[in-house]
Amino acid sequence: MTQKFTIHATDGNARTGILSTAHGDIRTPAFMPVGTVGTVKGMTPEAVKSTGADIILGNTYHLMLRPTAELVARHGGLHKFMNWPGPILTDSGGFQVMSLSKLRKLTEKGVTFQAHTDGSTHELSPERAMEIQHLLDSDITMVLDECTPFPATESEAEKSMQLSMRWAQRSKDAFIQRDGYGLFGIVQGSVYPRLREESANALKQIGFDGYAIGGLAVGEGQELMFNVLDFTTPHLPTDRPRYLMGVGKPDDIIGAVMRGVDMFDCVIPTRSGRFARAYTDEGERNILNAQYADDPRPLQENCPCPACTNYSCAYLNHLFKAKEMLGPILLTWHNLAFYQELMKSIRAAISDGKLAEFGETFLTRYRRLNED
Amino acid sequence: MTQKFTIHATDGNARTGILSTAHGDIRTPAFMPVGTVGTVKGMTPEAVKSTGADIILGNTYHLMLRPTAELVARHGGLHKFMNWPGPILTDSGGFQVMSLSKLRKLTEKGVTFQAHTDGSTHELSPERAMEIQHLLDSDITMVLDECTPFPATESEAEKSMQLSMRWAQRSKDAFIQRDGYGLFGIVQGSVYPRLREESANALKQIGFDGYAIGGLAVGEGQELMFNVLDFTTPHLPTDRPRYLMGVGKPDDIIGAVMRGVDMFDCVIPTRSGRFARAYTDEGERNILNAQYADDPRPLQENCPCPACTNYSCAYLNHLFKAKEMLGPILLTWHNLAFYQELMKSIRAAISDGKLAEFGETFLTRYRRLNED
Repeated sequence: MTQKFTIHATDGNARTGILSTAHGDIRTPAFMPVGTVGTVKGMTPEAVKSTGADIILGNTYHLMLRPTAELVARHGGLHKFMNWPGPILTDSGGFQVMSLSKLRKLTEKGVTFQAHTDGSTHELSPERAMEIQHLLDSDITMVLDECTPFPATESEAEKSMQLSMRWAQRSKDAFIQRDGYGLFGIVQGSVYPRLREESANALKQIGFDGYAIGGLAVGEGQELMFNVLDFTTPHLPTDRPRYLMGVGKPDDIIGAVMRGVDMFDCVIPTRSGRFARAYTDEGERNILNAQYADDPRPLQENCPCPACTNYSCAYLNHLFKAKEMLGPILLTWHNLAFYQELMKSIRAAISDGKLAEFGETFLTRYRRLNED
Repeated sequence: MTQKFTIHATDGNARTGILSTAHGDIRTPAFMPVGTVGTVKGMTPEAVKSTGADIILGNTYHLMLRPTAELVARHGGLHKFMNWPGPILTDSGGFQVMSLSKLRKLTEKGVTFQAHTDGSTHELSPERAMEIQHLLDSDITMVLDECTPFPATESEAEKSMQLSMRWAQRSKDAFIQRDGYGLFGIVQGSVYPRLREESANALKQIGFDGYAIGGLAVGEGQELMFNVLDFTTPHLPTDRPRYLMGVGKPDDIIGAVMRGVDMFDCVIPTRSGRFARAYTDEGERNILNAQYADDPRPLQENCPCPACTNYSCAYLNHLFKAKEMLGPILLTWHNLAFYQELMKSIRAAISDGKLAEFGETFLTRYRRLNED
């Protein structure tokens, strides 16, 4: 394996450790802020780093369209282009092709689509997805897969999963191995235990640096998602990182860690921050609510982020009412810091063998005061 | 005088020194970034400070409407509310009442207007303008004046100026003097030498901590503006700071400093930054221009700001094309840094007795490559 993954402690199915990449170490369980087009929206890379993030995610679909992977490569790769010296994971673009682009044609070879930006026609195949991510210089490359729509019949899910497994093999064949750079496979199979097991086995057969669980966080709900994790993670190698794509809210993350997941990414903290929604240990707050207009208290006591150490809820409320950029900037900063503080607490709890206790305490407080 | 103003060096009509306020010292000539509603758009206060700014400006009109001066006062004043511990100057609100609000009624007593935000009715008088700025805890309070429209006949300008002078007296009478807090008068009189002289004399008679020159930067052009400064500044006290309101571009500032002006404010660096326009020592650049799409060079060599030290023009171009917040953030940061570097160079040149030489060198380079 080209990426060393060391597990320092386990607690039930949960694990904590370090994944080492060409651009640095990632403490797991890890949350990866999403930097879609080469920027975590509203944040400087220094600000992202200050929240405790070890790794960020870039979106192949967006970057291949604009500014193009070739331009990024000419400018020294994505790390240099966007001034993020740490590890970067890029998705394969498959998910966004399905959710954002128009006029898609899916064949065995790959997918042809029209860009949502300017209608231009593009092709993505396992080989092209590897080439793009190589040009971007991603530390962690994802195989091209078809994200099976939800819901899907077992027969639809099987057909889709099997295509993804053939694409996984072609991705592996096309991936250029270099020290510290890794390729992750993606388990598909919708909500069907037999298909998830088959998919996990097929990927293990090919051999990857890490194993992602795809096709979740697409509207199936937390209970079903946890259920899929329960019957999927036992089929994954214990000595390689597991990545639950596109997840999630704090309670999703805690539950998934308990089921053996090591890595997460989600737009929730950044997108919510832009729309006045703050995550706190007392639940979610909409800072635009009238109750905050004259509230001198910080968003959250003891939070180390600038939004909480330097400002009152009243000021944050004012910024959003006045539609000032600093509002989204500060709430994004807070949410990312909150997520990273959560991951830090999770890692410490696993080390102490007290994850269940931590989870219960956290969620009791988090749910009790949740406004929604 | 409650605010100490020490002139360290002069060079022709130009001066450099320190104006001391309740919240700290201001190195003059000074450029004040505009923080309209309690935030310099797109910047944290730490970022503003890092550019070299000693003082920022807040707009009374905006703040009295939202979140209201009373709310700001309840939260410890504007410095604490917005986390800017340094000096703050607030305008009187008069200019924005005329340019932004609807259904104005101007009388001897003051002005009644409807807010541009929600149509609510408000009154502003010299006494109320003093009260609001006191509540905001402004280090430098501006008298309420009527910003004479341009162009105006001599008779219109005289009538307007005389109203402003009566309001200046009422402002002085209502201003609560405290150590380190100052009140500035505003010279009006449009483009008429006799009126400007009369206005300056009237203000000197009342006695202020500083003297602003108002009614300029309203479309009269640089030549006429310099002309007005030429016949106005000789009538102002030499031992008090002079402030040219709403000015300007780099060449406006250099010319005005040469004519004896000590303080400036303008939205140009911040507003331009949000709209892809960068100020550099080679002139103004629109970073959205196609020529920057693949340009690996920084916006400006040797500029200490994060936009220039960490990123290429290609990346900045990409951010603006993708409509990412980091684009406006970085270009605002650069423009403010550029303006503060300019002020630093101006102050050094005055100290060295070489302002004319500096101005010629700067402007030759600045104009030669200007794209517009």
